[in-house]
Amino acid sequence: MGRVRVVHAVDVITTKRDGGRLSDEQIDWVLDAFTRGDVGDEQMAALAMAILLNGMDAAEISRWTQAMIDSGDVLTFGDVGRPTVDKHSTGGVGDKITLPLAPLVAACGAAVPQLSGRGLGHTGGTLDKLESIPGWRAALSAEEIAAQLADVGAVICATTPTLAPADRKLYALRDVTGTVESIPLIASSIMSKKIAEGTGGLVLDVKVGSGAFMKSADRARELAATMVRIGTDHGLPTVALLTDMSVPLGRAIGNALEVAESVEVLRGGGPADVIALTVALAREMLALAGLSDVDPAEVLASGAAFPVWERMIAAQGGDPAAALPVAKHVEPVLADRSGVLAGCDALAVGVAAWRLGAGRARQSDAVQAAAGVRLLVELGEPVEAGQPLLELHTDTPDAVPGARAALDGALVIAAEAPARAALVLDAIRP
Amino acid sequence: MGRVRVVHAVDVITTKRDGGRLSDEQIDWVLDAFTRGDVGDEQMAALAMAILLNGMDAAEISRWTQAMIDSGDVLTFGDVGRPTVDKHSTGGVGDKITLPLAPLVAACGAAVPQLSGRGLGHTGGTLDKLESIPGWRAALSAEEIAAQLADVGAVICATTPTLAPADRKLYALRDVTGTVESIPLIASSIMSKKIAEGTGGLVLDVKVGSGAFMKSADRARELAATMVRIGTDHGLPTVALLTDMSVPLGRAIGNALEVAESVEVLRGGGPADVIALTVALAREMLALAGLSDVDPAEVLASGAAFPVWERMIAAQGGDPAAALPVAKHVEPVLADRSGVLAGCDALAVGVAAWRLGAGRARQSDAVQAAAGVRLLVELGEPVEAGQPLLELHTDTPDAVPGARAALDGALVIAAEAPARAALVLDAIRP
Repeated sequence: MGRVRVVHAVDVITTKRDGGRLSDEQIDWVLDAFTRGDVGDEQMAALAMAILLNGMDAAEISRWTQAMIDSGDVLTFGDVGRPTVDKHSTGGVGDKITLPLAPLVAACGAAVPQLSGRGLGHTGGTLDKLESIPGWRAALSAEEIAAQLADVGAVICATTPTLAPADRKLYALRDVTGTVESIPLIASSIMSKKIAEGTGGLVLDVKVGSGAFMKSADRARELAATMVRIGTDHGLPTVALLTDMSVPLGRAIGNALEVAESVEVLRGGGPADVIALTVALAREMLALAGLSDVDPAEVLASGAAFPVWERMIAAQGGDPAAALPVAKHVEPVLADRSGVLAGCDALAVGVAAWRLGAGRARQSDAVQAAAGVRLLVELGEPVEAGQPLLELHTDTPDAVPGARAALDGALVIAAEAPARAALVLDAIRP
Repeated sequence: MGRVRVVHAVDVITTKRDGGRLSDEQIDWVLDAFTRGDVGDEQMAALAMAILLNGMDAAEISRWTQAMIDSGDVLTFGDVGRPTVDKHSTGGVGDKITLPLAPLVAACGAAVPQLSGRGLGHTGGTLDKLESIPGWRAALSAEEIAAQLADVGAVICATTPTLAPADRKLYALRDVTGTVESIPLIASSIMSKKIAEGTGGLVLDVKVGSGAFMKSADRARELAATMVRIGTDHGLPTVALLTDMSVPLGRAIGNALEVAESVEVLRGGGPADVIALTVALAREMLALAGLSDVDPAEVLASGAAFPVWERMIAAQGGDPAAALPVAKHVEPVLADRSGVLAGCDALAVGVAAWRLGAGRARQSDAVQAAAGVRLLVELGEPVEAGQPLLELHTDTPDAVPGARAALDGALVIAAEAPARAALVLDAIRP
């Protein structure tokens, strides 16, 4: 690295360190040079920390997003014959909504190009879940994505390597340098990938609560507003729902367990909260796609989305009829007293599932397809002392004590249960 | 790097990022792991930025310093037969004071183990200056240092590679990541090396003004107080003088030019400001060494320090009688009007000398021994239009226009000159 580049990188870093605005030229240069390796990881780490502590204004965030998009290719799906619309969730516990949602929205007439990721920590990843289906493959070429969109109307697959490579590199760096928790960096990371993906509309599911990345409604609202603003700045119609993640979504947490629950929902059954959130998000997506006249609740209840699911899975090599993996070891967690189930902490359940093998600590770790947690009792239901409250599923029984420790205090049995928080807390629109 | 170490490093980073105190264990662990390569440069860069922006308290700084000392060896000079005392300057333009000071203090009865560095940017480095003396070598072993201290009483040499290696590694990283300007990191960097060097007392010359690293007296005072406190915490008697660096010290700026001026001073002549500062610092050093009864002004004026200089240079292979290198190209800068020389900006002169070849932009660059600037007129002296104010010395005449550009506006000729600022602005004692 030549001295001139070092000096230039130091100028960019010290501008933000000293509370200044990064110019368009500085942003374009530093992200391009970082992608090419001319700005070192140690320099970008210092810049990321300065951004985390000193912030970026809306114009800086918008330019930063554009520079990340410009670091790679941009997909276009203008010729798939339907309006395209996508959803992104900031991640939660038991959040399998993408699985029923994409086929549902396709069944309603839009096309869903859902380029997705893997899980990290206590939140699951959509690709990990689908990979529990025998034969299913996550990696598609841009041509395969376009063909499947035109044919099936829904694709859930891995982000292609040429999409926003600056973001890929920066995210890996932020993960090890304590610089993940910056709203400008989170918002630009998500939006750069979604804009580069070429969707015609975007609905964001920004989760709030113990099991979410954003623990407070204020921070979640700020993140949502920042992303909606970026979408608007880039001509991408974007809406964000703030949704509750203080308790797990549905009754299944873990890869194959969540696929099974998603299939239930696609067949017209399944837990009420999963159905409600799927429908709420579908309604927003269809509105952006100009298809407000279709009622997704009706389509979902009719089971009409299930054949789309089968074709979507089959198009990527999966066998939708194959039996899903089953854990080698299953054991219950019992109620220690009688009463009403008054609390079920999302974070604790997420960590328990992670420890059982459903999640990973680093990107290169493998996950167990069958591991996870099944909730046997809903909030508000009466329970007897000694009754099983949930099941722990794992292929590695050594992991059970750690999972039980994570759950300590997470399940609250009381004389009566408080009213459950609303699932959709707010909507943020341009 | 295992995940446990990554998690631990992220914990340390986020503690400081979120405004918390680093525990003793965190400091010890992170500096040890960084030195061994288990904490990556990108992680330490993020931590350095968090420290720069969120600070460290006195106890954290003290522990950080100790952990850097513990990363390497500690020298001891208990058996050289005299009290040891050293000086460190934060760096300035024309600051050759170490050259006359070390032999002077040795001539007065103390021993001076001065482990020194090279220049970077517009400030010169003591080793660069001495290397303009034919044959002189900077690298000595710990045994050679001890032997020379016992024999001559003064050593000026390079820091040994095993002294505070964590600091060496961290400084190189800070240089490219915009994290130099942190008082806790500057203070701990300087003090870790000086404490590891094994001196029995330390006088700090903290420079203030355009040619100094610290432009404001407040920041300089804070740095001085921080370093004095670290010294006290580690049982090293430490005193700091705040001294003016708004104009260059002496009339010579550049490696061989400064050696020549130092020899003048050692022979009992030389510029008044160089003599005054040398004596002021010597007085503080002798007080710390318990030798307050010796008058360094008298010793210097007598020329008695010059034979110590000759022996010190000869002990390291140098020929004190050899002719110093002379620049291939010398040209004057002329006064553009008549009046009194009212200003001579230290930074501008330092940058000019650097551009002429006396300094370096990065650690691996070579310097020209003969390049630099000679001032021909003192502040307050009358000048005539067309009279030479200073000389530019270089082996690379292409550099002259850049040097002249740096000097633009730096030399002020007015009807009368303001009173010159005091040379020693303040003293900070434990």
